[in-house]
Amino acid sequence: MKTLTNDQKKFLLDSIRDIPDFPKPGILFKDITTLLNNAEAFSLLMNHLEERYKEFNLDFIAGIESRGFIFGSALAAKLGIGFVPIRKKNKLPFTTISEKYALEYGVDEVEIHIDAFREKKGARVLLIDDLIATGGTAEAAAKLIKAANAECVEACFIINLTFLDGRKKLDELTSVYSILEIA
Amino acid sequence: MKTLTNDQKKFLLDSIRDIPDFPKPGILFKDITTLLNNAEAFSLLMNHLEERYKEFNLDFIAGIESRGFIFGSALAAKLGIGFVPIRKKNKLPFTTISEKYALEYGVDEVEIHIDAFREKKGARVLLIDDLIATGGTAEAAAKLIKAANAECVEACFIINLTFLDGRKKLDELTSVYSILEIA
Repeated sequence: MKTLTNDQKKFLLDSIRDIPDFPKPGILFKDITTLLNNAEAFSLLMNHLEERYKEFNLDFIAGIESRGFIFGSALAAKLGIGFVPIRKKNKLPFTTISEKYALEYGVDEVEIHIDAFREKKGARVLLIDDLIATGGTAEAAAKLIKAANAECVEACFIINLTFLDGRKKLDELTSVYSILEIA
Repeated sequence: MKTLTNDQKKFLLDSIRDIPDFPKPGILFKDITTLLNNAEAFSLLMNHLEERYKEFNLDFIAGIESRGFIFGSALAAKLGIGFVPIRKKNKLPFTTISEKYALEYGVDEVEIHIDAFREKKGARVLLIDDLIATGGTAEAAAKLIKAANAECVEACFIINLTFLDGRKKLDELTSVYSILEIA
């Protein structure tokens, strides 16, 4: 299961529900809760991620709030390594490093604890989130991992909305792996 | 590891960081990020939960946003069953059931998807969150599981602030298990 077949990818894609006009008009939201509550789909996905990443010699998985927590902690538990949350501003209780990123209108900000990687220099980190769209959040998150003295070995997304080309924001920061591509 | 020794509990407790006056003055916040990024502590905890719950014949794990996602999805992935998120109001994209609960000042609300348990009648569900304080959120979440036609078999918390006696709000709804008790 290191590589998913096209049939397996179709099964995963079919387990995701499209919600029109959420959270606002014109957006077709990808609802992954129907993948998560489908034991067969969720197991297939997590076993695939475990197979892929067990040879990456990772030290930590970093997940982006809040759907990235779901996939990230599950993978960290399977691999027996630590999990690090990257959160929206003012949610983490200890000293943080923060990074702003542009939204369609305005800016947002994500944070990581300054000691997130336990002072292990050059820690090998996998960044994970459910979906990459324009890539702004992921770019900020990858920068935070570097700012916290670790190496973002790869950024992994369950879904890549390839028509938004978010991947290009990450090309100079990390390699990118996405399982389901929606063109 | 079905039962943790006192030494193992002390190791887990020592891996949690106290943050004074977060998120507001007078609150001593339990920062679990230092447990999560400690591979030994996180593995010990998740292996214990897996050992305990693999004999419960569970169908789903429901986790409360957002720290409950971290433990809940990790356990669901280990057990090979589905994961269901219980979220703050207006975060879930499909039709929801909602439940209000009292805060110190005011009210808050949590939601679950109406089809969260895939129309499996009497589905056996474990509710999980990182911490139980006064128990208001957990009580609302347990009610949501019942309202979605499933059975809340147990509510599991990594930390129980027993001096706040939140458990009594759950006594009529579900059995309760907590790993670390802070009196």
